[in-house]
Amino acid sequence: MGWGDLGVYGEPSRETPNLDRMAAEGMLFPNFYSANPLCSPSRAALLTGRLPIRNGFYTTNGHARNAYTPQEIVGGIPAEERLLPELLKGAGYASKIVGKWHLGHRPQFHPLKRGFDEWFGSPNCHFGPYDNRARPNIPVYRDWEMVGRYYEEFPINLKTGEANLTQVYVQVTDAWAGRARGGRPPGRQAGQCLPQEALDFVRRQHAARRPFFLYWAVDATHAPVYASRPFLGTSRRGRYGDAVREIDDSVGKILSLLRDLRIAEDTFVFFTSDNGAALISAPKQGGSNGPFLCGKQTTFEGGMREPAIVWWPGRVPAGQVSHQLGSVMDLFTTSLSLAGLAPPSDRVIDGLDLLPAMLWGQLTDRPVFYYRGNTLMAATLGQYKAHFWTWTNSWEEFRQGIDFCPGQNVSGVTTHTQEDHTELPLVFHLGRDPGERFPLSFASPEYLHALRGLTLAVRQHQETLVPGQPQLNVCNRAVMNWAPPGCEKLGKCLTPPESVPEKCSWPH
Amino acid sequence: MGWGDLGVYGEPSRETPNLDRMAAEGMLFPNFYSANPLCSPSRAALLTGRLPIRNGFYTTNGHARNAYTPQEIVGGIPAEERLLPELLKGAGYASKIVGKWHLGHRPQFHPLKRGFDEWFGSPNCHFGPYDNRARPNIPVYRDWEMVGRYYEEFPINLKTGEANLTQVYVQVTDAWAGRARGGRPPGRQAGQCLPQEALDFVRRQHAARRPFFLYWAVDATHAPVYASRPFLGTSRRGRYGDAVREIDDSVGKILSLLRDLRIAEDTFVFFTSDNGAALISAPKQGGSNGPFLCGKQTTFEGGMREPAIVWWPGRVPAGQVSHQLGSVMDLFTTSLSLAGLAPPSDRVIDGLDLLPAMLWGQLTDRPVFYYRGNTLMAATLGQYKAHFWTWTNSWEEFRQGIDFCPGQNVSGVTTHTQEDHTELPLVFHLGRDPGERFPLSFASPEYLHALRGLTLAVRQHQETLVPGQPQLNVCNRAVMNWAPPGCEKLGKCLTPPESVPEKCSWPH
Ligand SMILES: [Ca+2]
Ligand SMILES: [Ca+2]
Repeated sequence: MGWGDLGVYGEPSRETPNLDRMAAEGMLFPNFYSANPLCSPSRAALLTGRLPIRNGFYTTNGHARNAYTPQEIVGGIPAEERLLPELLKGAGYASKIVGKWHLGHRPQFHPLKRGFDEWFGSPNCHFGPYDNRARPNIPVYRDWEMVGRYYEEFPINLKTGEANLTQVYVQVTDAWAGRARGGRPPGRQAGQCLPQEALDFVRRQHAARRPFFLYWAVDATHAPVYASRPFLGTSRRGRYGDAVREIDDSVGKILSLLRDLRIAEDTFVFFTSDNGAALISAPKQGGSNGPFLCGKQTTFEGGMREPAIVWWPGRVPAGQVSHQLGSVMDLFTTSLSLAGLAPPSDRVIDGLDLLPAMLWGQLTDRPVFYYRGNTLMAATLGQYKAHFWTWTNSWEEFRQGIDFCPGQNVSGVTTHTQEDHTELPLVFHLGRDPGERFPLSFASPEYLHALRGLTLAVRQHQETLVPGQPQLNVCNRAVMNWAPPGCEKLGKCLTPPESVPEKCSWPH
Repeated sequence: MGWGDLGVYGEPSRETPNLDRMAAEGMLFPNFYSANPLCSPSRAALLTGRLPIRNGFYTTNGHARNAYTPQEIVGGIPAEERLLPELLKGAGYASKIVGKWHLGHRPQFHPLKRGFDEWFGSPNCHFGPYDNRARPNIPVYRDWEMVGRYYEEFPINLKTGEANLTQVYVQVTDAWAGRARGGRPPGRQAGQCLPQEALDFVRRQHAARRPFFLYWAVDATHAPVYASRPFLGTSRRGRYGDAVREIDDSVGKILSLLRDLRIAEDTFVFFTSDNGAALISAPKQGGSNGPFLCGKQTTFEGGMREPAIVWWPGRVPAGQVSHQLGSVMDLFTTSLSLAGLAPPSDRVIDGLDLLPAMLWGQLTDRPVFYYRGNTLMAATLGQYKAHFWTWTNSWEEFRQGIDFCPGQNVSGVTTHTQEDHTELPLVFHLGRDPGERFPLSFASPEYLHALRGLTLAVRQHQETLVPGQPQLNVCNRAVMNWAPPGCEKLGKCLTPPESVPEKCSWPH
């Protein structure tokens, strides 16, 4: 989802009344960033509080190549990394992930081995349908075991865009309940209880008076974009808008439950996204990054500036805006702080505790580093952003119609060759020029002043940087989701092919 | 000011807390349009409820040329037009205009001859400084007489951007009060009362229990952009942002006064702009039109989509969004409706009464017509916009560095020749594609469907259209502000040159 997809961030159709109300009752961060312009590195950063270059969610297979976590990937979140739910256990928290995990799908990376107590969702993106011969359909897990596969037990109609996954993610759906009445929901034995997703998890923790961490990682706005029938065709923005509306509706349901249970004042809620809206299918299924340049995959603002709202009635003042520059990695440190825990002291943590900003309006200077793979593409400090490299994608891909910046060419900026500006970075003033359209003149005193600060911040960062072992270098079709745990109970085990480790290829 | 200049419309620096609060307490119109992408035609439309092509605020001097009201213009608002303050008199309203009039500066067009009871401001834009030989500096009027000139009694420092005009527009300023104590404020005799602008006007009407209409037409975000010293350098967005912040602060003062006087529930307040932000000086002094294409001067959304907030505590529900497609011309009809008056029945009125939308959420289908001069460039109906002509400005101007769409080239759309698409209009879906980047395929059923509705709406419009006498065709340096009324008291009369009527030249 993109910065510009929320009404409160200026989406002209203004179809997110629940998120807009969340902002009116909470605090908005207009300067909030993902740690990477792509799903899985960004999520790994959120759960570790560390840049992907440190936690291993990057590739060295090619210069400045983004890499994600498809089902042929061999790597995943390293055992040495300390994840937020693992640490929260120390303060007695129950943790659940609903939705996409994306930190590795092989058994050793299972989220329930990494601190989560419950899981409903999938390890990879909901791409497909596959033929279960060349590649298996992606499994959907409940806790330790698979309960079905996308396009099979969990249908997504690519033609109509219909899927009821967002409904399942938030609550017991009529569809599931109906099947349970008629016989049994997919993957459950008769007599077992009904599916219990976000709302039920919250209810159960509340009943048990247990502190909880719910990581609600929905994927409806990720291609292929889907929505359930009641939302399909209801948006002014097309199918992508339908998906946004359904997510917005779910947010409303979650906040309502917290109010109904009278735990709103004891529950810290944060809404954000893992990367900017993908524009590649614009306008048919493209989101909005507001006034910012380009989208997902790129290190322009449209790729990494994210919507961000904190909601904590009675604690975080209502209707406020914080100009604190924030990052998804801050959610790690802030959540630990809320639980009275300190972040690990034996490693570099990039996340900042945002509570001083949220509670007392305190502002802390800090840089943003924009990576693609192992390459530092850009950095922001204060209002200034320097691009050391520019690249959207290759001419070869671009000529095939793959465009991360459709209709947004800025000469010398949205380049299709990897252009090295490290000797003379392109510098933008993000306050006057949020769209990164007007590089400062190299000869101006302002350029020199801005570059001085940025150069210092980058030097400090690079001098202390110890890159993690790159997890996204090796692929192997044998490690795909052929026979996930639980497949035997469902009769859905498939036979893997011969093991052939290969260097993953990352086109952009 | 542009659609994207308000925090509540997604300006990333979010520096308009008062306007954002106004929206939180009132109703936001994300689909609200000016009647023209330029100052004076748009203002003429606001005060007459009629398109400029009807009320005469256009030129036939060249195809698709915008025209405004400089001081050499001979024309002005025709005597036959019925202006909002003239009509409101029938219901006992006192009316004041603060700021730029722009409907003609010759004596017959004086706002106090057209229904206003008070005026503080100027007839033209605050361009200058001039030498008072080739052309006079623009006068500033209080009511019937000039009280000084820009760059003389009303300084604007072009280098620093300092001017205290927005302060004067809203309230008695320390500067004026000081001068009054020391001697007398410019243009006032000793013993006369102090300047009384927006706040004092409201206080006086309240004390007299008289209904009032305040037309607060500030111009701080119009080139040359200015702000008073307390605001200069305080915005993250540069000088333009300083001006926006000062206007925002003034809006807060006006709303506060209404609350303090306990007349908020009896006062209908509407905030909007006369055209999209000018991007010609971006990013140094350019505003933001959010996700929309181009800016002032153009008939793309960035030129005519406007911020719009209604505030009427206890009457218009708080925190709501109306998807009603609105226009500045609606303020004419709506204001009459509020006063219990019907619009004139002897002419076409383009404005709609928005009260049903505001009070009961009623939505009314209606088209938007986008003109440049006498040329219908585009039309919107529902989510679809058709461009019959595309043009930004000429190649000749563009090569001189004049750019109304800096950094925003969309091939075949932001053209520098006047391109005729009337046979096969470019059609955009503004919901999926608010930035007008992806014309629908001519072969698609959606295109044919959209065009059918649009063609019908345009045909109906054109069949009944009776263009007014064009007011912006003839210029004459002899009619400039050489000797405005009151000049003799100030010793500021200048001698006009010989009268030489000429065809005005409109470069774009
Ligand atoms: Ca993503
Ligand atoms: Ca204007």
